[in-house]
Order: sequence, then C-alpha cells, then structure tokens
Amino acid sequence: MQVLTDLAERPVAKPTDDPVSALKDAIMRTVGTPAVVVDLAVVDANVARLQAACDAANIANRPHMKTHKSKAFARAQIAAGAIGLACQKLGEAEAMLDAGVTDLMVCTNILGAARCGRLTAVLARPDASGLKLAADSAATLAAYAQAGRDAGRPVRVMVECDTGRSRAGVVTPTEAATLAKIAANDPSLSFAGLMMYPSGADWERDQAFLDDTLALLADAGLTAEIISTGGTPNLSALGKLKGTTEHRSGTSIFNDRMMVAAGAASEADCALIVYSAVVSRAEADRGILDAGSKTLTSDRGGLTGHGLILEYRDAVITHFSEEHGQMDLSACADRPEVGEVVRVVPNHVCVVVNMVDQLVAVRDGAIVGVIPVDARGALV
Amino acid sequence: MQVLTDLAERPVAKPTDDPVSALKDAIMRTVGTPAVVVDLAVVDANVARLQAACDAANIANRPHMKTHKSKAFARAQIAAGAIGLACQKLGEAEAMLDAGVTDLMVCTNILGAARCGRLTAVLARPDASGLKLAADSAATLAAYAQAGRDAGRPVRVMVECDTGRSRAGVVTPTEAATLAKIAANDPSLSFAGLMMYPSGADWERDQAFLDDTLALLADAGLTAEIISTGGTPNLSALGKLKGTTEHRSGTSIFNDRMMVAAGAASEADCALIVYSAVVSRAEADRGILDAGSKTLTSDRGGLTGHGLILEYRDAVITHFSEEHGQMDLSACADRPEVGEVVRVVPNHVCVVVNMVDQLVAVRDGAIVGVIPVDARGALV
Repeated sequence: MQVLTDLAERPVAKPTDDPVSALKDAIMRTVGTPAVVVDLAVVDANVARLQAACDAANIANRPHMKTHKSKAFARAQIAAGAIGLACQKLGEAEAMLDAGVTDLMVCTNILGAARCGRLTAVLARPDASGLKLAADSAATLAAYAQAGRDAGRPVRVMVECDTGRSRAGVVTPTEAATLAKIAANDPSLSFAGLMMYPSGADWERDQAFLDDTLALLADAGLTAEIISTGGTPNLSALGKLKGTTEHRSGTSIFNDRMMVAAGAASEADCALIVYSAVVSRAEADRGILDAGSKTLTSDRGGLTGHGLILEYRDAVITHFSEEHGQMDLSACADRPEVGEVVRVVPNHVCVVVNMVDQLVAVRDGAIVGVIPVDARGALV
Repeated sequence: MQVLTDLAERPVAKPTDDPVSALKDAIMRTVGTPAVVVDLAVVDANVARLQAACDAANIANRPHMKTHKSKAFARAQIAAGAIGLACQKLGEAEAMLDAGVTDLMVCTNILGAARCGRLTAVLARPDASGLKLAADSAATLAAYAQAGRDAGRPVRVMVECDTGRSRAGVVTPTEAATLAKIAANDPSLSFAGLMMYPSGADWERDQAFLDDTLALLADAGLTAEIISTGGTPNLSALGKLKGTTEHRSGTSIFNDRMMVAAGAASEADCALIVYSAVVSRAEADRGILDAGSKTLTSDRGGLTGHGLILEYRDAVITHFSEEHGQMDLSACADRPEVGEVVRVVPNHVCVVVNMVDQLVAVRDGAIVGVIPVDARGALV
C-alpha cells in the first residue's frame, strides 16, 4: 500500500455506488479489523476551517501535532497557513524538525529530555533556532539553561501560566514575571512569551491574569513576543483574551466524540473512525467488538460508553478488555451479526492515534494509502 | 544501548551502594523520563514461580504473551518449561513464530485476520502446524474454514466457553458441543479442545459446565485434547477445575497494582516500573508527573488512583492528561520537588507495555540494555 508522507500528493480514490459498504469491505479484505481510518477529505476541511478561524480573528495558527504525530499532516497544516506547530514532547519536535517544520513550541516542562542530553542534541541542530520550550518553575529553567550552555544556543522560554484548569503553569502573575526575569537574565535562556490553556469558564479572570502579568513584565522592561492560548474547545472564543498572538488547537484536525459533546465539532467533522468487526454475540443483549483498550484506549472523557457506534447508536460500549469492546445492545432495535463491520467514533482521538504505527487513509470511499504516525510513542 | 533479544544472554550489572538512587540517576541521564523499566531479576523469579506452580499442579504452562509481546521474554518462558504461548492477535502469533515458538493458541475470534488473508498466509507457513485458534460462533468457524481451505492446512479450533465472566465464549454446553462438531466435521477445521477464563467465583458451576460439555462431546465421539484455563488471579486455584490440561497466565511475568490488589502478587513481584519525573509543583497540594495516559494509560482496573508511587505512597494520581499525571499530595507528609524521579507501579501492566517500542532492562540496580516489544500495536 502506498505510504503517504505528504498529503500534497493528494491521492484520488475511485467513487463507488455505496461508499460505506464498499469501504468496509475493502478495509476488511486488505488491512483487516480493527483498523484506524482517517478520511482525508474531512481532514482537508478541518485543517482549512481551523486556519480560517485563526485568520478571521487575526491570530496566528499553531496547531498542536500531538493529535496526529505525523509529518504528512504537519506539512498539510503548514501549507494551509500555520506559522508552526506545538508539540508535547521533545521526540515529537525532533520528528517535526525532520519534516522541515522549524517554528516549534514544546508545551511541557521537558526535564527528562533536558537531563538525558537529548535537548542539548536538538538545540545544537542548525534548524533548531525556532524552538521554544515551556517552563513553570525555576528548576525547569535551570535544566534548560544547562542544555543551552552545553549546546551553545540559548533556550527560548515560554512561561506557562495556569488560567483556571489547575494543570501545569504558575498560578500568579508574580510567579510568571519572576520566571520571565530569570529567563531574560540568563545568557543561556531568553524570554519568548506566555503560554496558557484557558479554562473557558472565566475570561475576565484570565484577562486579569494576563494583564497583570504583562504589567509586571513591563515594569521589568520585558515584553512577551508570543502570547499563546490553547484548546480546540476554545476556538469559539478566539480573540476573547485580548493580547493573544497565537492559538494552539490539536484535536480539531480529526475531532472526536468529546469534541462533539463539547459543541466544538459535528459528527461529520470526525475524520478518524475505528472500523471494528463484531466478533462475538454470545447472548441477545450483548456483543463484542475486536477493538478494546489497546485500540480505542480507556480514555473516557466523561462520556457514557467508550465510543459511538455509527450503525447502532443505541449500543453502549460499556467496558473493555485489551482486545475486546463489550457492547450492551439491550436498547437496540436492530442488532449486529457476528462478522459485521461497524464504525466507531472514539471518545478521545489523540490517544487512539498514538496506539498505531500508521493510519489507513481513505478518500471518497476508497483506501488510498497509509500515513505513518512518525512520533508515535515519543515518551521523552 | 545493547538490544537484548534473548534473555539467556543474562547481562550482568554493576552493583552499587544505593541502587535505587543510582538507577534513577542512570535512567535520567541515559534514556530520560518517563521510562518503562523492567527488572530482569524479578522477571526471572516470576517466570520460575509460574512454571513451578503449573508443575506442582501437573498442568501445562502456556503463558499469555500479550503482557510482554516480546521475543526475548517468550524464549525465557519456553526455556523455563512452558509448552507454548497464548496470543490475543494473529500479529502476536506471527512474532512468536518468528521467535521460534510454534505451539501457539490465539485466544480470540480473529475475523479480521481471517478475512484479510493474513491468517491464510500464516497457516501456509511450515512452522504453523501447532497453531490453534479460538472460536465461539459458527460465523467465526466459517471464516477459519475458508482460510484453512485457502492455505491447504486445517485450522485447529479451540471452542471458547464462558464460565462466568460474560466476555467471549458460548454460554451453554450444548452450544460448545455444536461448535466442536462443526469443527470436527469440516475437513478444513479440526477440534482441538475447550478454552475458558473461569470467573473464580463459582467453581462448581464451572465444573458442571465443563463436565456437561465433555459428556456431550463423548456422545458425539469427540474428545477435547486440550482443556485450557486462564488468568493470573486463578493461579491460586490451579487444578481446581478437574480435567484442566493447561493454564494461561499473562500478567504474572510482570505483575501490577491490580494483581497486588487481587492478592495474586506482592509489591516485590512487580517487575515493571515506570520511572517518572515530577515536572511541576504549581501549588502545595498538587504536582505533575511526566507520565500521563500516553504512558500509564487510563486503565484503572477498579483501583483508586492511576498507579502507586513507591516514594510517596499517600500521593494519589487522580487523573491524566496525555503526557501529565496529576498528583494529589494533600495526604503526604513529605512532598517531592520538581525534578525528583519517582517510581510508579502501574495499575495495569499489559497496556503499559503496549505503549512503548522497547523496555529498559535493569538488573541488580543497573541498566543492562533494552528489550524490543516486538508485537507492540498488533491490531489484527
């Protein structure tokens, strides 16, 4: 099967009369089930929609590649107008540099990568001048500074601010300014800006946090070149946080059941579908899919059931074994036979992509190739 | 780093005065965090203990390789006395055949593998005569028979029986006997035996199911050459089901927090540990690990928290982001600093192994190489 490393190759599929059935049959006959399948036409539309939303808000688009982890999709996002990419691991940034994308932001404290020498090696690459790294503590900055010294290239630091989600990030403007000053005053670091993932719950609070931080920075003679917000659910509020220069959205390239539930996407926007065969129907009210926690993962995302079965919308995937998805069919008028292939919209697409070495690419109802998940399993 | 493909190479580690700290330092400096680390000495003991338990019960040992997915560990289990291996996917069986293990049982209805041609290709291998496949429906048997015809080698069928867990498996002895007869009467199939995963809750019920099935088989002139039970928690009841010829245990090679909670292992028996750095301590009562759902997975296994932190036993990993583990430290007297490396016993080890392409192997407190997870991500 053709390996698609650049979506600009734009494969053409053969149209069929009944594309859904024909595609199921083709998947079953060629790659078998379960299969993690991406519809490139839906991806095209999702990539264009994200870019258009950012353009309309006059905010730069920095898609988060943790969702797709693929050079081919990265190139497609850049071609559509993205200024660069966000990553969550240094291993992801390495793959993106190899794909020719240089404006990269790693959005986590990467202490493991800093202390094992991999960060130094990346910083020493000629194409690494656009790399920016997040930090929310002096300890992380010290590790980055050491790597910067060792590599002979200062580390550009994004100070991560917690604006309501209680994840990583400093919780006060004073701490943010303190870290910015450390970065600005260390010759092995430089201060690049502020990074946050707004909760979406209290924009006034977030604005106050940002404004207070910027005021403290100004007092210290510092400016935040980049003010980066994140989150696909926050796309509907692009520009609401005054001062934002760029936005990071990952999931919107594929979307999933969580995004549909959050109102951030429609079902038709879900580009990634797991095709799975019904492999057991031991009793009338239950059945088993050949996709379990090693395919769909146990990420539930607060939803009922582990995925939506498009053909049996009243079926509930109640729990997983590693290779089995247990279906409760008691609410279903029609019920699948053993051997039937169904399409499952996963709850959380980012973790599903990370389970497979390659995605099956389809367009117009036909398989057109496979797309390597280049940074799959990047731990460090 | 040395790639260990056969544990018989038995690497020797250098002893140190403070092995835990020295190992943490070595891991941080060489591979970074998070790191999925296996202690080969604990594996040796676990492999020997499983074999001894089976020997004592006079039941053949067929370890389930879905836990380790690795040729090196497979060879170690065979060397210790295992008759063969259980697999959950055909792709796993392919890897084990490549490792020279031929007595293989695939314990699921593999319709995807049967219908895409991969099963036919495997059956046509000269080394595939020991392959056995589970089935719990006539539809699965029909797919297997087609593959057997295409390959010119009959498929040896294990009829899967549900003895209490409501997973796959026929729910009555009559159904089991019906499938056995179909297999026995089709020239492209043969009947090899019965396979089950006892619930451990009602052995009398399980015994009655088995005895009734065997009586029906005898009426039809059939015998079950293999009667295969499964489950690491069932090791304490080996031989309780009269007639059992072999047992399948997967998790016991590494063990995990679920097995400790079930009383099937002690903490010292847990061979696989995730070494993770504390990367954020934004507030006094919370902290963040660099291991999230893309490392430890969201499989909770009914336990409180997503893993046990050996250094901070009162810390609770409350929830994950993809690359972050959120710690509630409010119950901890001592609390970790940013940069500290901690050891996490995962809730469910089988899914953690499947996240990584290789495991870091240690012995006597030192890194001795890496072990490829050869069948990682085998979907079909």
